Amino acid sequence: MLITQKLPLRYLYNMIRVDVIRVLLFSLTFNFFKFFFNDYLPSMPAQLPTILGTAISLVLAFNLNQSYDRWWEARRVWGAITNDSRTLITELKNFIRPDKLGTTEIKELLRKIAYRQIGWCYALGESLRGQDSRASILKYLVPAEAGFVLPQRNKNYAIMDLHLQDLKKLYEQEALNAFQQIKISDTITRLIDSMGMAERINTTVFPVTYRLLVHFFIYLFLIILSLGLVETLGPLEIPILILISSTFFLLEKTATYLQDPFVDRPTDTPVTSIARNIEINLKQLLEETDVPEPFAPKSFYLM
Amino acid sequence: MLITQKLPLRYLYNMIRVDVIRVLLFSLTFNFFKFFFNDYLPSMPAQLPTILGTAISLVLAFNLNQSYDRWWEARRVWGAITNDSRTLITELKNFIRPDKLGTTEIKELLRKIAYRQIGWCYALGESLRGQDSRASILKYLVPAEAGFVLPQRNKNYAIMDLHLQDLKKLYEQEALNAFQQIKISDTITRLIDSMGMAERINTTVFPVTYRLLVHFFIYLFLIILSLGLVETLGPLEIPILILISSTFFLLEKTATYLQDPFVDRPTDTPVTSIARNIEINLKQLLEETDVPEPFAPKSFYLM
Amino acid sequence: MLITQKLPLRYLYNMIRVDVIRVLLFSLTFNFFKFFFNDYLPSMPAQLPTILGTAISLVLAFNLNQSYDRWWEARRVWGAITNDSRTLITELKNFIRPDKLGTTEIKELLRKIAYRQIGWCYALGESLRGQDSRASILKYLVPAEAGFVLPQRNKNYAIMDLHLQDLKKLYEQEALNAFQQIKISDTITRLIDSMGMAERINTTVFPVTYRLLVHFFIYLFLIILSLGLVETLGPLEIPILILISSTFFLLEKTATYLQDPFVDRPTDTPVTSIARNIEINLKQLLEETDVPEPFAPKSFYLM
Amino acid sequence: MLITQKLPLRYLYNMIRVDVIRVLLFSLTFNFFKFFFNDYLPSMPAQLPTILGTAISLVLAFNLNQSYDRWWEARRVWGAITNDSRTLITELKNFIRPDKLGTTEIKELLRKIAYRQIGWCYALGESLRGQDSRASILKYLVPAEAGFVLPQRNKNYAIMDLHLQDLKKLYEQEALNAFQQIKISDTITRLIDSMGMAERINTTVFPVTYRLLVHFFIYLFLIILSLGLVETLGPLEIPILILISSTFFLLEKTATYLQDPFVDRPTDTPVTSIARNIEINLKQLLEETDVPEPFAPKSFYLM
Amino acid sequence: MLITQKLPLRYLYNMIRVDVIRVLLFSLTFNFFKFFFNDYLPSMPAQLPTILGTAISLVLAFNLNQSYDRWWEARRVWGAITNDSRTLITELKNFIRPDKLGTTEIKELLRKIAYRQIGWCYALGESLRGQDSRASILKYLVPAEAGFVLPQRNKNYAIMDLHLQDLKKLYEQEALNAFQQIKISDTITRLIDSMGMAERINTTVFPVTYRLLVHFFIYLFLIILSLGLVETLGPLEIPILILISSTFFLLEKTATYLQDPFVDRPTDTPVTSIARNIEINLKQLLEETDVPEPFAPKSFYLM
Repeated sequence: MLITQKLPLRYLYNMIRVDVIRVLLFSLTFNFFKFFFNDYLPSMPAQLPTILGTAISLVLAFNLNQSYDRWWEARRVWGAITNDSRTLITELKNFIRPDKLGTTEIKELLRKIAYRQIGWCYALGESLRGQDSRASILKYLVPAEAGFVLPQRNKNYAIMDLHLQDLKKLYEQEALNAFQQIKISDTITRLIDSMGMAERINTTVFPVTYRLLVHFFIYLFLIILSLGLVETLGPLEIPILILISSTFFLLEKTATYLQDPFVDRPTDTPVTSIARNIEINLKQLLEETDVPEPFAPKSFYLM
Repeated sequence: MLITQKLPLRYLYNMIRVDVIRVLLFSLTFNFFKFFFNDYLPSMPAQLPTILGTAISLVLAFNLNQSYDRWWEARRVWGAITNDSRTLITELKNFIRPDKLGTTEIKELLRKIAYRQIGWCYALGESLRGQDSRASILKYLVPAEAGFVLPQRNKNYAIMDLHLQDLKKLYEQEALNAFQQIKISDTITRLIDSMGMAERINTTVFPVTYRLLVHFFIYLFLIILSLGLVETLGPLEIPILILISSTFFLLEKTATYLQDPFVDRPTDTPVTSIARNIEINLKQLLEETDVPEPFAPKSFYLM
Repeated sequence: MLITQKLPLRYLYNMIRVDVIRVLLFSLTFNFFKFFFNDYLPSMPAQLPTILGTAISLVLAFNLNQSYDRWWEARRVWGAITNDSRTLITELKNFIRPDKLGTTEIKELLRKIAYRQIGWCYALGESLRGQDSRASILKYLVPAEAGFVLPQRNKNYAIMDLHLQDLKKLYEQEALNAFQQIKISDTITRLIDSMGMAERINTTVFPVTYRLLVHFFIYLFLIILSLGLVETLGPLEIPILILISSTFFLLEKTATYLQDPFVDRPTDTPVTSIARNIEINLKQLLEETDVPEPFAPKSFYLM
Repeated sequence: MLITQKLPLRYLYNMIRVDVIRVLLFSLTFNFFKFFFNDYLPSMPAQLPTILGTAISLVLAFNLNQSYDRWWEARRVWGAITNDSRTLITELKNFIRPDKLGTTEIKELLRKIAYRQIGWCYALGESLRGQDSRASILKYLVPAEAGFVLPQRNKNYAIMDLHLQDLKKLYEQEALNAFQQIKISDTITRLIDSMGMAERINTTVFPVTYRLLVHFFIYLFLIILSLGLVETLGPLEIPILILISSTFFLLEKTATYLQDPFVDRPTDTPVTSIARNIEINLKQLLEETDVPEPFAPKSFYLM
Repeated sequence: MLITQKLPLRYLYNMIRVDVIRVLLFSLTFNFFKFFFNDYLPSMPAQLPTILGTAISLVLAFNLNQSYDRWWEARRVWGAITNDSRTLITELKNFIRPDKLGTTEIKELLRKIAYRQIGWCYALGESLRGQDSRASILKYLVPAEAGFVLPQRNKNYAIMDLHLQDLKKLYEQEALNAFQQIKISDTITRLIDSMGMAERINTTVFPVTYRLLVHFFIYLFLIILSLGLVETLGPLEIPILILISSTFFLLEKTATYLQDPFVDRPTDTPVTSIARNIEINLKQLLEETDVPEPFAPKSFYLM
């Protein structure tokens, strides 16, 4: 997530460098032609760039809108993960009957589940970004459980299964009644759902033809605009076209980046930072001592 | 689902071939007329194509938006099917009391239900696409159950009924308590709902007049634009019109294809691939040995 | 629901006949004036139709969008009715304890409730369309119950009350436990909600001033466009205006028809056909013998 | 809610009288200036009104969209109130055990609760509209309860508390089991939620700067359009401007009226009529004899 | 929340002062150039500002739309907090069995929980706005509990944990049955969710590049419009440009302010006022005597 208004210009420049250079090249070409072979350059009627400008603006605006919705959905999913992680531990803490298990045993168990949940949050974020999540699993899960989880293809789903196994034991030990088991298992179901939603956003490619057409349409518009402007404006057309094309390409890139919120880019949903906040919340609730600091942003963005 | 940015041009070309040829024909005709009978060709005022261009761009953009929503809803439904399939098996695994049924019996039962659920996912995808789902049912259901399911008109609903019959038996054997029965039956209800939602999207025709009008409106716009451009641009009008019309027709087709996500086209929701992932997840959870590989994409798309 | 791409032209023509004739009349008048009293006809500046064209296109596109949402919500409601009807019977079938009631009695009861549910679906569709639903109620309910339902003003609500009365009896006979009663009563609550939602869509008039303004705005635009075109295009203005106005009026009518999905028009939500599918599903589940065929479409639409 | 297509013109005229007179005044002034001091009037370039026309059309269309959503949400809330009122009474009727309380006592209690619920619906509608709801409370609540409710600031919340007190008593008398108490209390929770949602829509002012800017923007556009048209059209500009400005102002007013659906205006959500329908439904269910007629619309609208 | 239609002009002026002065400067410069070095100023073709005007209007309209949705979501979250706060206390009041605890003890406990809930509402609003919430916590929580809450980083989450601890005690004392505990704990879960949603809106920066581009795009449009107008309009261009630019900048600022609804600005969601209303509701329900007055607006806004 980009966090500061003082975004480095270099970052913006890198987003659209290739496209702007292409625009520079063809507008230079058109100026060159106009200078030497004026008669051969077609005279573009004014209404054509107007029509195409309206059309591409509309398509781009809608594209931006759908991309924004997708980005916001990704953020909502991780908001739900925050809420349900907190709910899970609070419920366990306040549901388990103290007379069936010893106080120390309960504390140990709560700690184990909370750490496993923290590990799940980190690991989910990493696997969404295509990173290796083994380190997080080894760090937050006890060795035996890590051994069960690591060989599985969907490690995050296996961790949730461990939660449900503990829940089953607690119910069999009568430390939870039947309703409490169902209530907590509902919370775990919601976490499985959130995981599935994040996976869905991550694996569903934004309609490819739509994405390509927006890109192609911007070029079509800029070429025709360039031909239309070169006659009246001459060389001044070049900086104006660069400014206009930069705006359009940056809007397009903004849309494209919002479409894929888990690809290890500065515009990502800040999953590591969210997982860290969950870690802080859960550890403070259990009165742990090694509560870490919130994740600090890297220069102009937060992962 | 189209998966690669390197979409073959041939695929795009085939989408709009017929329409582009028509455009080529009438713009050639107009040029021919202009050359030989210039006086008979009406002089089209510049504002007319501008107005129509704005109108069709708007209608097309909204159409694309509604089609995108429909496509995304279809994907969300299959995301929910993934989540609920996983939840169903995890719940059964962690709810069934081991003392009422033998461990082997439980394992067998879980296996039977999980395979049935996998079969349901494949069969649902196939029946949505109008394909024959009998092979999947015979492969994943035990013979007696396949015999009950196959004669039914709505086979997928019959499979869900089998789930509920097993649930009833488990409750009667006291392997599940009353709350657990309700909780799992909730999960099955959600699966029935998802099935109904996919069927709804599949059988509800996108408003026909709307679809036709968009198509007709694009032609009206292109004919008037062609008449407007032929005077100032001459033969150069032809390639420009082809480029512009291709963009509009491709946007229209993109919308049309998104509207129907279960028709056995490369732009389909990848139901077979999702069913395969569910198969992998469930089999790994039950520690089966014959876990298949994820479904590989065919050249540029994933079914 | 219109179902075929081969919509009869006559149907489209009838939608907009009156409006197109009006357009024909005023554009003929303007041409006549231009021919005989050219000096008296105001010269319309080109930007005016452009501005109005953009404005009416926008308002029309948003109107179409809101109408589409309303139509889709109506379809979603009937999708939920399909799902919950199926869930109701599946739950009853798999929850009722066989030891408290005899097998025959259970079968009879299930049959009675399923037929009542089928009758409710038909009757709801008919009452939404303002048709007489008494025949359906008499056909699917047992005489005593039909006698209770028929005098009531909200017959569909009374049928749901009968469901709940049976549920009460089943609970008192201990054929259902307390949780099962609640779970099934939840399903019935959802059916009552769906009924209320369909009634809400049916009785809430789309904002009248909005609808009128769209209509008036199209005329204002067409008159000014006609005045603007008559000077440059002459008599050719008439067919062009007819084509453009047909598109705008058809878009407007499409929107208007989508707004009211339960008024016994070909564009209706196909409630009779949905009710028939529910009938087939429920009867097959209960292994009835007189399962009817799906409802066949009438020429180009499905009711 | 406006209900007829035959809206009196006077109603529309009154909505925009002041604004149209202002437009008349400044366009008269411009014509006057043009006639006497033509040289002093600036010549407005054609693109300026076009740009502003597009911009205000867009902002107005989005404004209309958001207002429509708000209006539709208000209607949905009252749809939920209808559903939950019906559910509340149906559940009570079919859950209460007849052996714990006498049949007459149950009937009396049901009657008391149903009347209280009817009173709540009327009172909620009245308090949303800023009217005095004491008459409704006195009419439908028994004197002792009215005495508890009337001094409270949030009377509607106090009525819901009375529902829950009865529920508590029924549970203590074992006329309802624990699950039934929870299920009915869920229904009451949903009613409290709907009440809160209606209050939220009512007390949340639509963003003031947004509303003001739309109004100011329309004037800016009309003044510049007037200056642009006066040169080419002369006095004919006046009626054309009046027609165009009426359309824009009526669209703006339509939006503004939709934003506030509980302010005792003809465009209100018809809460009194909905409350009356609830009264009819509940009284028929309890087989009361004094069932009133549905609320009749006043000339062109329904409150 | 801005509450009056009579917004001070000074407030609007302050929102856009810097931007308008910049516009004034460059349009003065262009006029100066035009006057002295007319030949050096490029002649801007009319279609360019039209294209850019359409594009920026679209992007701005969509931006306003997304910002509005965000603002409305924030308001909905606080609406849910109001509803769930009321539900929490009503449920506790009507669920706790009077025979297990003494009437006084129940009353004391209810009072403690209601005050804690009130304190949570104030504290949540303050911490969202980055203000110090310690005073509110000390005012509404008993000293021992305040001592537990104050050292925690997420104080609001700790307060919810106190609710659940009380709930646990009530269940252990058998003053609540198992279902009631679950039902009330559901309400608390929803409050934790609402808290998480408000935090999510507060910490998720609106896409930075999007926000910057809108700002830059308005300047690009205004500069090109200014160059286009200066030739035809001369010095009159300055006031016209100021008016147009004010409208665009005010629309942009309106969007920006709606994006961040918890930053201690007059356009904030009125969280203090909502917390006060909750205080009034809860105190009246418990028949407390020191019920405060509703929060009075400050001049033209309500916090």
